Amino acid sequence: MNEDLLRVRQASRCLTTVTQESINAVLTALAERTMQRQAELLAANARDLERMPDGDPRHDRLMLTPSRLADIAADLRHVATLPSPLGRVLSETTRPNGLRMQRVSVPFGVVGIIFEARPNVCFDCFALCLKAGSACVLKGGSDAECTCRAIVGLIAGVLRDHHLPETLVHLLTTHADTDRLLTAEGLVDVVIPRGSRRLIDHVRHYARVPYIETGAGVVHCYVDSDADLRKAIDIVVNAKTRRVSVCNALDCLIMHRDRLGDLPVLCRPLFDKGVFVEADEEAYAVLQPLAPALTGQACADSFGTEYLALRMAVKVVGSMDEALEHIARYGSGHSESIVTESEAAASRFLREVDAACVYHNAPTSFTDGAQFGLGAEIGISTQKLHARGPMALEALTTYKWLIRGNGQVRP
Amino acid sequence: MNEDLLRVRQASRCLTTVTQESINAVLTALAERTMQRQAELLAANARDLERMPDGDPRHDRLMLTPSRLADIAADLRHVATLPSPLGRVLSETTRPNGLRMQRVSVPFGVVGIIFEARPNVCFDCFALCLKAGSACVLKGGSDAECTCRAIVGLIAGVLRDHHLPETLVHLLTTHADTDRLLTAEGLVDVVIPRGSRRLIDHVRHYARVPYIETGAGVVHCYVDSDADLRKAIDIVVNAKTRRVSVCNALDCLIMHRDRLGDLPVLCRPLFDKGVFVEADEEAYAVLQPLAPALTGQACADSFGTEYLALRMAVKVVGSMDEALEHIARYGSGHSESIVTESEAAASRFLREVDAACVYHNAPTSFTDGAQFGLGAEIGISTQKLHARGPMALEALTTYKWLIRGNGQVRP
Repeated sequence: MNEDLLRVRQASRCLTTVTQESINAVLTALAERTMQRQAELLAANARDLERMPDGDPRHDRLMLTPSRLADIAADLRHVATLPSPLGRVLSETTRPNGLRMQRVSVPFGVVGIIFEARPNVCFDCFALCLKAGSACVLKGGSDAECTCRAIVGLIAGVLRDHHLPETLVHLLTTHADTDRLLTAEGLVDVVIPRGSRRLIDHVRHYARVPYIETGAGVVHCYVDSDADLRKAIDIVVNAKTRRVSVCNALDCLIMHRDRLGDLPVLCRPLFDKGVFVEADEEAYAVLQPLAPALTGQACADSFGTEYLALRMAVKVVGSMDEALEHIARYGSGHSESIVTESEAAASRFLREVDAACVYHNAPTSFTDGAQFGLGAEIGISTQKLHARGPMALEALTTYKWLIRGNGQVRP
Repeated sequence: MNEDLLRVRQASRCLTTVTQESINAVLTALAERTMQRQAELLAANARDLERMPDGDPRHDRLMLTPSRLADIAADLRHVATLPSPLGRVLSETTRPNGLRMQRVSVPFGVVGIIFEARPNVCFDCFALCLKAGSACVLKGGSDAECTCRAIVGLIAGVLRDHHLPETLVHLLTTHADTDRLLTAEGLVDVVIPRGSRRLIDHVRHYARVPYIETGAGVVHCYVDSDADLRKAIDIVVNAKTRRVSVCNALDCLIMHRDRLGDLPVLCRPLFDKGVFVEADEEAYAVLQPLAPALTGQACADSFGTEYLALRMAVKVVGSMDEALEHIARYGSGHSESIVTESEAAASRFLREVDAACVYHNAPTSFTDGAQFGLGAEIGISTQKLHARGPMALEALTTYKWLIRGNGQVRP
């Protein structure tokens, strides 16, 4: 029943001998074809959009437009210009017995991506996987099925024109397919789920193949007793309100008690943007008079929640220890930040907080592959195995050891 | 019900501030204490040995002796001398906006190890985890329970003497504990199973925490048409017979048809050592007259089997393509080798074979952390995520991104 995945696995083997020039040619041709076939892609997308109820918040994520297609084509051309992540010699040594050993970056083989509505993920993931020498299996949301089919059809055509197997990209569409992918031991080398916490939980429960957890971020900003107030305001406002629906958005402001008096000034611009605050007792006393309609009392669920909305928690602490304790307990290991002018406090926070990205005097909104200078991002890992934080081409490779001898044997 | 694991997690946080000097002092003191308390350890071990039936093949693996304890103490002192895997700056950059970014190696936090009889694993794993800044949860085989308890008690005492929490090492003993460890989401950062294929399969089915597959190796050696016969003999004999019970031992010899005439000379020393050969039709015709009692006809199960015994398969192929196809189909991605004097053939094999360790003119018996110069090995990964092949201290670390700013915000 996994014959389709077996074909993908077999196709992936051809990539060990394909040159980066061919790969880049495919990506460039795909960019061109995407622009030529706009009408076809938009028509398929229109069919998906029609099926979605008006006012559904996913509408915007699902929609393709001529300008979005132009962006996609530009991204494809950009990936073609990036250096290859393959064939990097990660370490090299000659042993006393004369064996020459190299550790060299190589493709995964077959990468599975499970995603929700956004059809542009098909282009992104195919491009990054191909650039990293892997075939990809794409499981898209059923809402985007027509669009995904049209995109994968387009990609298959370009592969065919370049004398490469069409099965280097494979689309799955049903829930049953998701579980088939997650249990395809020996056929899929890694699965990357991109989406809601529910999806990630499902993967954690059902996967028998390796996977990388992505996404869910319960994000804190700790305003230390030695914080610069101006920086704190800029950082907190940016982290909370730049885009509320993304995983790096702020969920909980932790305020040192010494600075409780600054809390109204700090929260004023948040209230102005309509942010609702779930405040602990001390913070409530200070904020409620300022914005009665936008201040509530924190409950048990206020902490450890990823809000993804104009809403956040505020917690007052008496020391760095308490702040670290709160983050260790409620953080999800995604992004955490401290605002302070004290080098000692900053060093301690950077050392002791256990998260993918730890910031000093900068907002967590920077947690993003492009902002990190990684070129192109396939997701943000919240696990510690293999890759942590923004993942780009390098994270889509593994390595192998090459050992060259001359007939040596082991005593 | 996971209060014990929660305590381990909390204890692990203290390691972010412990110096390498303290860690090395603990390891050295443990080496000393191991020698001082020999009698106690041997007595505990004797109780486990008594419960095991005579002639049980696990007897030897379970047994501690004064000389084995001396080796263990030497290993502990050796780990103390190794460079720390922590705090390595893996990449560093300043972004155009002035943000300074560093990717730095850090501890996992809590590492779970599941192993079978060998009690020395308690020492090894504790030492490597501590050196890499992590607490460890050890799930030993019930056969070794008394010994493991004695060892963990000894370790706890040394930790206490060094003002470190005893819960940096924690022993689990029951089957139910294994499943509890495998589902302790948020409390355990990675689990490494060391043992039989059955154990690995169990982990793959039940784990909801990240894990690294280790061990099982279906290993091939391809003797190419351009092979040097002398090298081929040395390599095949070493790979098959040096130690038959280890994962890097040869399971299948793939012989190019052009060299079928050399098969008797190649197999003679194997037969002399009592190796039984499951030969495909062509090989059978050549080998059966030579050693009728040690030659059988290959069946469906002959290929893809990890023998762990004086037994191997022989397959004859007409081309490199066929050899690569056979390895792709039956290999487990552990170790594979080619014997050839042709640089072109060697390059192709090294490039196209998808395995952790790929050898040219050397036997797979070298797949071992110490042989690779890695210092100390915690297992051999057969997956592609995080670490591949022999894993040492570096594989026991993850990284985090440290981002230092001055109030920058993201537009």
